[in-house]
Amino acid sequence: MSGATIQELKRAAAQAASDLVVDGMVVGLGTGSTAKFLVSIIGERVRQGLDIIAIPTSEATRIQAEAEGITVVGFSEQQRIDITIDGADEIARGRLDLIKGGGGALLREKIVAAASDRMVVISDASKLVDRLGGGFPLPVEIVPFGWEVTVNKLRDRAGKVTLRIGADGGPYVTDGGHYIVDCDFDLILDAGTLERDLATIVGVVESGLFVGIASEAFVADVDGVHRLVPG
Amino acid sequence: MSGATIQELKRAAAQAASDLVVDGMVVGLGTGSTAKFLVSIIGERVRQGLDIIAIPTSEATRIQAEAEGITVVGFSEQQRIDITIDGADEIARGRLDLIKGGGGALLREKIVAAASDRMVVISDASKLVDRLGGGFPLPVEIVPFGWEVTVNKLRDRAGKVTLRIGADGGPYVTDGGHYIVDCDFDLILDAGTLERDLATIVGVVESGLFVGIASEAFVADVDGVHRLVPG
Repeated sequence: MSGATIQELKRAAAQAASDLVVDGMVVGLGTGSTAKFLVSIIGERVRQGLDIIAIPTSEATRIQAEAEGITVVGFSEQQRIDITIDGADEIARGRLDLIKGGGGALLREKIVAAASDRMVVISDASKLVDRLGGGFPLPVEIVPFGWEVTVNKLRDRAGKVTLRIGADGGPYVTDGGHYIVDCDFDLILDAGTLERDLATIVGVVESGLFVGIASEAFVADVDGVHRLVPG
Repeated sequence: MSGATIQELKRAAAQAASDLVVDGMVVGLGTGSTAKFLVSIIGERVRQGLDIIAIPTSEATRIQAEAEGITVVGFSEQQRIDITIDGADEIARGRLDLIKGGGGALLREKIVAAASDRMVVISDASKLVDRLGGGFPLPVEIVPFGWEVTVNKLRDRAGKVTLRIGADGGPYVTDGGHYIVDCDFDLILDAGTLERDLATIVGVVESGLFVGIASEAFVADVDGVHRLVPG
């Protein structure tokens, strides 16, 4: 893949992971620019006869999946997911812990991923880091009521905490009706401890730390697509 | 208070706690049948000249407070609360840990309580227990998306888990747009550990366990109102 663009790398990672999807599976569909390639590739296979049902991680992905002809269901119909394939904002080498939520869908992504037997990350190699947090602030989904107080509590822990702003100039509102604050923790030394600490803050719904959830990653660089497993 | 009804006991507890409210304070106003007495008592004092501003813990309390003539503000205007006075569904003797959320306002109640210098519980003596959980199931506020999966995770921990149903026959929806599940944990041996465990479940927004938050309690029985402090 010499001379490949980032878009081509994302597509290659999505392509490689999509081979894991076979007839009869319940598939969690991620959200974001890399997942978009995945939904498109799977849509093509569905139109050629692939027999799956899918649970999307956002309204945007639901709309794309339905347009592609993929059968979309909710958790009322299916509570066990065979495989979820999703992008990430940062992937830690080794344990494959993740930062997600740049696209604003972290809560649903985490609910779907946590309900999946297998969670596969797809990414270009630029997202691969030795330690999380150095290049990407951690998104944290919080309750709108009293968000100012919750932000103050996050500021006690993080360097810089910024309420994410939406297209209309007001706070960005997630599919779940919450706000997102982007927290700069600098390099995160212990993702598991930070995740648990954030979870106990009143007003925090969920953080974008995915610890011990990814079962493998397909990461594309100019040499090809590399499959990584936690180690 | 011989022969006092439960309503009279609730009113007596609210009356005793309301004496803590003085000019210049920012006051968090609780939700529920006992807090209703408090808002009414404080409203009367405001109309007689008491100068306070209030942050309500629910839409219902906001409506009552405004009708009483109390100045109501949000967290955008005030992020420090001097005192919050609220009821509880169970109060543990000794540590004064609480179960709250029977009225469906636990998230806002917890956000307000956690932002307060002082959190005062008001109750009749029937709510006082040696250990939480024996007489009242623990309300847990969860995200509607994937609630079926979240309930399954709670069922791994609790005996009986029931989605609360609203007046319209569908799931009860909180002020924050979430669902509530009532979880029977039987007697809760370690409220702090359970609270942290529940907080780390993806899909759980907040539990109705208030651990180490109450700074005192006014509990009324037929002998009068007793002031308890954590010990």
